[in-house]
Amino acid sequence: MILRDSVHGLVSFEQDEEGIVPELIEAVEVQRLRRIRQLGLTSLAYPGADHTRFSHAIGTAFVMKKFLERMRVAERAIPTCHRLSFETAQTALAAALLHDVGHGPYSHLFEEALPECPTHEEWTVRVILDPATDVNHILARHGQGLPARVAELVRGHHELGYLGRAVSGTFDVDRCDYLLRDAHATGVSYGRFDLDWLLRSLRLSSPDGSSPRLAIDGPRGLPAIESFLFARLFMFQQVYFHKASRASEWMMSRILGRARWLVANGTELENVPPALAAIAREGEATLGEYLELDDCVLEGALVAWSRCRDVILADLCQRLRGRKLFKTYEFYGRNRSAELEGLTLARAIAARAGLDPDFYVGLDVATVAVIDDTAEPLTVLFPGGQERQPGEVSFLLARLKDEHLQQTRLVFAPELRPAIVQALQR
Amino acid sequence: MILRDSVHGLVSFEQDEEGIVPELIEAVEVQRLRRIRQLGLTSLAYPGADHTRFSHAIGTAFVMKKFLERMRVAERAIPTCHRLSFETAQTALAAALLHDVGHGPYSHLFEEALPECPTHEEWTVRVILDPATDVNHILARHGQGLPARVAELVRGHHELGYLGRAVSGTFDVDRCDYLLRDAHATGVSYGRFDLDWLLRSLRLSSPDGSSPRLAIDGPRGLPAIESFLFARLFMFQQVYFHKASRASEWMMSRILGRARWLVANGTELENVPPALAAIAREGEATLGEYLELDDCVLEGALVAWSRCRDVILADLCQRLRGRKLFKTYEFYGRNRSAELEGLTLARAIAARAGLDPDFYVGLDVATVAVIDDTAEPLTVLFPGGQERQPGEVSFLLARLKDEHLQQTRLVFAPELRPAIVQALQR
Amino acid sequence: MILRDSVHGLVSFEQDEEGIVPELIEAVEVQRLRRIRQLGLTSLAYPGADHTRFSHAIGTAFVMKKFLERMRVAERAIPTCHRLSFETAQTALAAALLHDVGHGPYSHLFEEALPECPTHEEWTVRVILDPATDVNHILARHGQGLPARVAELVRGHHELGYLGRAVSGTFDVDRCDYLLRDAHATGVSYGRFDLDWLLRSLRLSSPDGSSPRLAIDGPRGLPAIESFLFARLFMFQQVYFHKASRASEWMMSRILGRARWLVANGTELENVPPALAAIAREGEATLGEYLELDDCVLEGALVAWSRCRDVILADLCQRLRGRKLFKTYEFYGRNRSAELEGLTLARAIAARAGLDPDFYVGLDVATVAVIDDTAEPLTVLFPGGQERQPGEVSFLLARLKDEHLQQTRLVFAPELRPAIVQALQR
Amino acid sequence: MILRDSVHGLVSFEQDEEGIVPELIEAVEVQRLRRIRQLGLTSLAYPGADHTRFSHAIGTAFVMKKFLERMRVAERAIPTCHRLSFETAQTALAAALLHDVGHGPYSHLFEEALPECPTHEEWTVRVILDPATDVNHILARHGQGLPARVAELVRGHHELGYLGRAVSGTFDVDRCDYLLRDAHATGVSYGRFDLDWLLRSLRLSSPDGSSPRLAIDGPRGLPAIESFLFARLFMFQQVYFHKASRASEWMMSRILGRARWLVANGTELENVPPALAAIAREGEATLGEYLELDDCVLEGALVAWSRCRDVILADLCQRLRGRKLFKTYEFYGRNRSAELEGLTLARAIAARAGLDPDFYVGLDVATVAVIDDTAEPLTVLFPGGQERQPGEVSFLLARLKDEHLQQTRLVFAPELRPAIVQALQR
Repeated sequence: MILRDSVHGLVSFEQDEEGIVPELIEAVEVQRLRRIRQLGLTSLAYPGADHTRFSHAIGTAFVMKKFLERMRVAERAIPTCHRLSFETAQTALAAALLHDVGHGPYSHLFEEALPECPTHEEWTVRVILDPATDVNHILARHGQGLPARVAELVRGHHELGYLGRAVSGTFDVDRCDYLLRDAHATGVSYGRFDLDWLLRSLRLSSPDGSSPRLAIDGPRGLPAIESFLFARLFMFQQVYFHKASRASEWMMSRILGRARWLVANGTELENVPPALAAIAREGEATLGEYLELDDCVLEGALVAWSRCRDVILADLCQRLRGRKLFKTYEFYGRNRSAELEGLTLARAIAARAGLDPDFYVGLDVATVAVIDDTAEPLTVLFPGGQERQPGEVSFLLARLKDEHLQQTRLVFAPELRPAIVQALQR
Repeated sequence: MILRDSVHGLVSFEQDEEGIVPELIEAVEVQRLRRIRQLGLTSLAYPGADHTRFSHAIGTAFVMKKFLERMRVAERAIPTCHRLSFETAQTALAAALLHDVGHGPYSHLFEEALPECPTHEEWTVRVILDPATDVNHILARHGQGLPARVAELVRGHHELGYLGRAVSGTFDVDRCDYLLRDAHATGVSYGRFDLDWLLRSLRLSSPDGSSPRLAIDGPRGLPAIESFLFARLFMFQQVYFHKASRASEWMMSRILGRARWLVANGTELENVPPALAAIAREGEATLGEYLELDDCVLEGALVAWSRCRDVILADLCQRLRGRKLFKTYEFYGRNRSAELEGLTLARAIAARAGLDPDFYVGLDVATVAVIDDTAEPLTVLFPGGQERQPGEVSFLLARLKDEHLQQTRLVFAPELRPAIVQALQR
Repeated sequence: MILRDSVHGLVSFEQDEEGIVPELIEAVEVQRLRRIRQLGLTSLAYPGADHTRFSHAIGTAFVMKKFLERMRVAERAIPTCHRLSFETAQTALAAALLHDVGHGPYSHLFEEALPECPTHEEWTVRVILDPATDVNHILARHGQGLPARVAELVRGHHELGYLGRAVSGTFDVDRCDYLLRDAHATGVSYGRFDLDWLLRSLRLSSPDGSSPRLAIDGPRGLPAIESFLFARLFMFQQVYFHKASRASEWMMSRILGRARWLVANGTELENVPPALAAIAREGEATLGEYLELDDCVLEGALVAWSRCRDVILADLCQRLRGRKLFKTYEFYGRNRSAELEGLTLARAIAARAGLDPDFYVGLDVATVAVIDDTAEPLTVLFPGGQERQPGEVSFLLARLKDEHLQQTRLVFAPELRPAIVQALQR
Repeated sequence: MILRDSVHGLVSFEQDEEGIVPELIEAVEVQRLRRIRQLGLTSLAYPGADHTRFSHAIGTAFVMKKFLERMRVAERAIPTCHRLSFETAQTALAAALLHDVGHGPYSHLFEEALPECPTHEEWTVRVILDPATDVNHILARHGQGLPARVAELVRGHHELGYLGRAVSGTFDVDRCDYLLRDAHATGVSYGRFDLDWLLRSLRLSSPDGSSPRLAIDGPRGLPAIESFLFARLFMFQQVYFHKASRASEWMMSRILGRARWLVANGTELENVPPALAAIAREGEATLGEYLELDDCVLEGALVAWSRCRDVILADLCQRLRGRKLFKTYEFYGRNRSAELEGLTLARAIAARAGLDPDFYVGLDVATVAVIDDTAEPLTVLFPGGQERQPGEVSFLLARLKDEHLQQTRLVFAPELRPAIVQALQR
């Protein structure tokens, strides 16, 4: 299999161990990802952000392929018993392709609005393990234990510990692809980093023959790591925490929550996706119901709900579809009491304006750690064999390693803006 | 208004004459383009090709902005009476943004399957002229005659003749944007050309004070023109005429034709979009019905029809949704009688296999001219004032100016492949 | 004038106020920059780094052109009396083009090895003010006071204070060009930043009608500023402070110092550039002598000196020409006493090996501030008119504003490495 | 060995068979290429074109590495006896790195002005075979027969015929690198093509077990081939045949010819490079003398000759150094008699103006074939095993395969322009 990718250029899966990738791509559960946009509502802020989880899944498998190629050079430095086998490579490629297969549209909103609903990670594992899926069928054909091994690896577990971190860690293949892909689609050039150099900067260390761990090639590998972390920070600031993305997501979470509540209370609503109805009424949905969810299905629900009798639900749907997004007010300086006071003020203003504060005003806190696996940080391996902590030898990491990026905003209906801004700036 | 675009980078509309662009972008008819993919089914061949007509509309307006900037320099060479006014610039920007506003999903397939249906160009004009639309309302607010002038320009007519060609001609702003955007989204690097140099290569000539015409700055502007034409040829070869795109479009056209016929004959079908039903039954649809069409609506129809009782329609829908695409056999050498003979053979094979030849076999002819406005070609204007024809001074244009790129293929259900290939290679 | 640039693409100087740029480019003092590599000896570490100060001079003028375009939009927010005149724009463009015209090859090494020699900034001013130069002649033709005004601006002084900072400040046009150009030529992708967004992020503020100051457009302009600063940091880490660059520069400074000392002491040396001889003997050189210096002249001197009788000079020249570079040992953690102790140890090792410690061992300290105009920092201007300090509203600047990047290394002849490394790692 | 390249990004030579590359890079004959610009005088037209043959040599070796990687996949389709051995790969990498090692500055001008002088290809072979060179020494250390095998391959000969063509053919590794590198340095974006796809498009065919031949993967490999050819055509039109490049090269060839004639006739000239003096006086130069030639040496000669007593030589040197380039007049339409008539007219005008027609007027004919190995064209290999000629299945190649790009111009001193243009346009 050979195809053109907008991010990686020529993408091929032609080696024997890669043969499972083209097969899995044809599975209906993977094809379904064609109908789920990678960035949900972000295209309301960045018109180009219409790329799907399908292209991201392929890209992630391709980054895993390149990661494995690098590991096969790096593992010359460690005992033979720890090297990658055909089967391990196959498992890793399958896990990379499938890591997001359980994603629904706007997945974390879904999980937030319907707390009984399993997380998308759990759905991913179900898709892999359920004998009724194409995915499971294909995996099992390649080895009886393969579905279980892939599911384990998707959860970050593997006897080669470093492989687990390559699927789910600070520099995992998922992030490597989505940062580049989201940067390409949004036009946010800050999000680019040099993938080839990042991979080349990775080494394996196995002190005393223990299980190999990933390390950074010091000192020349440091800038690749640093620039990856900055690319990630910039993408969070610019795209994932963009005020219009966050505001529209906040609206969508209210819509889903309202719809769930109405359904649970027996209100008739058109075009309710079966999965949502099942969860609202019975507390759970089948995998089949869940996999019917996609962007078009939710889009169809929004169209119908825009005309429903519930005033709040209809209003929120009309606003979101017509791109009349809620506005935001950003707090600087992390003053929690000022933020809560602001929320109280804004809720009072909404109430006076006749708008239900639970649906027309909110406090949105977005936060991310600069480095998130501080528990088991990558060490830096110097030519002479010396190992050091990144913070000791990297100017930038020394200054940022324990930091969190956080953006806190009030979110509210546009008509409330003048009153809220006036109240807050007093 | 300032935004990030994946193709043009920083895109802004901040001058007075550009003020109409942000207003029009908020119109529901323009927002609807968010739900129509630019390349229809091409994402089945190029996983990244999920970009929409919405981002293309903005990009086209931006290219028009840059074109007007260039013209304001170029027009120093022509009489003052022919220069761009505020109002003309506004009209041009609006026309660029709106040139595709009447597009439905898979528009030319729609037009082919439902011959009574107006073309997308006609729908565009209706959207602009119909007093019920947001678009018309916004335009009219800026000047009573504006809707009519914009509609005229969208059709390629303007008293500044060159402006008409900039909206609809060999190097029009529409093409400039879509070639770059489609190249960016598919990863087909051959489709890139240097837009800044292309614009810089344009001049205005007005012999004896006549109406100004576009000309190429000779000789240094020639490579920009040549490389634009090659970028276009490559995109046709690689993307627009890609066998999987063409095969899936052929399937979609059969699906729409079949559905129309069933509806016209009174068969009950679920999820038929009102526009399609109206055209099938009454020969025409209202603008409101038409504008309800988008990718999600057709997607919903395909889901429903996959389960309908009509065996052919259900089968074709299942295949297309499951990405079991028809295969192709390419003819080289333009031998019309061999092509028709091949079609006859293939139809017979289908019939023997129990498949209706009208729906399972077809001859697909894709064709495009290298240069398509030979009637009024751009001349090349040399420093001394001499004008020459491109073919006289350009090595490449001399050799390609009257040529057509054509790709002719048999399209057929995959299970017919062995028999068809065997029959054709005899 | 219109030309292709490898960094900025289409570069043109066609407006009236830009007319002075093409004229100045033809001056012999500007053409001389074709023979001076931008990055001196860095091509020993990055094979592509052969670009010259000539292309950088043109690029800097082009960035100034774009800066002025931005200022002409930004100045709508300030009183008319502070706006850019034709003459100011002309002065700014000339200053940008000429800011480096006094550079000799390896300029700071020259200044270090020959302390009597004026700095390259002073030579630049002399070139502009000396009536014997082409540059002065051309400037004076455009206005009697122009040479003086350009010289003032090159020094960072102008009645429009912000213009002085645009020529010499944290985000000056010089840096904007050289970061991009050096990144392009070395292949260090981390050095790229988005120039269009950076310029778009600049605003002018003039509280109470006072002299306008540059400000950042808040909050959306912050990432452009942040990413510029990171690009700069990465370029310092990767390129300007690269160990092979620093080691070869250290060697060159010893070579120049040794040659000066020999000449001053009356030793006969072939191919000594007249400027060096004059400074060594008389303490100063004429402008004419200085302008004869270029990379080829120094290259010719190195060839000759490789065969001279002074053993140290000949040896160092042979090593540098044959790319037998000195090695380095990097100190982490800024422990000044450990560094000095290391130097003492290494000098003793060199002496024992029969190598003059002054020429075969050194301590190289490279340092740069993350933000270097803390005295008058850019403020961030919010939509409502509020001004804030970058550190208050930028996650990254808050953490880095008072920091310095520093790299300290021992530099020594390769044959000393084993002994030095052993001694230091004890 | 791992380094950053401005064109290919991360470049590494870390496999065993690649070990010879880093060794050869350190050879003085390869390091000398740092002092020879790749495009000679072209930086007079494109300010960024200062890159050297050194970076091109490394780039070419890297393309060869990628070519060999592709061949190792492609050769699975052919008999084992034809596969690449360790030694063949080593030979190929060395030949790629060294293919230009015999280049002098402005090599073809040198060869033209000094017809007794061997071509740069012959010098390359001498460098490889002469036991006194570093290069020979390093090669011989890896195998006694290696110098001879590398020399053969540089000449295009190898028992694996396709390898010879990869070093010297239509799509050879030399071209692949220089087109991309020259495009990158000049900013002529038209020269870019997709190297990964080009390599992926190559296959090996070995009908009946005969010696393997390169073929194109049909039909999907065709666009990669086509776009490579177009990139090449555009680079010739835009860069290699640029009027300012050609005019300055014409001037340089007159300078070298004049200097040779003066030396041969016993005139005293300063700074004559020993190689030139030897050839002028004795008809040949030693390899050592030849290898002393570089850009700086010729630059030094030009400086000295600018002040010599021969009026013509001094004048031409002053003009070239001061960038007072000769002008051109382009003939369109390939009318040989008109061209010769133009030359006669121009010579007469020069003579009347007191300028020696042999040195101040010339007819410059630049020509290149679109495809230059028509003798043994690549075939297109289709999935079923069918082979076809490119012209049968490629729209573009069918139209261009036997064509030549040709640009013919009069070259003359600028002061003659008015009279010549007037005479020619009559």
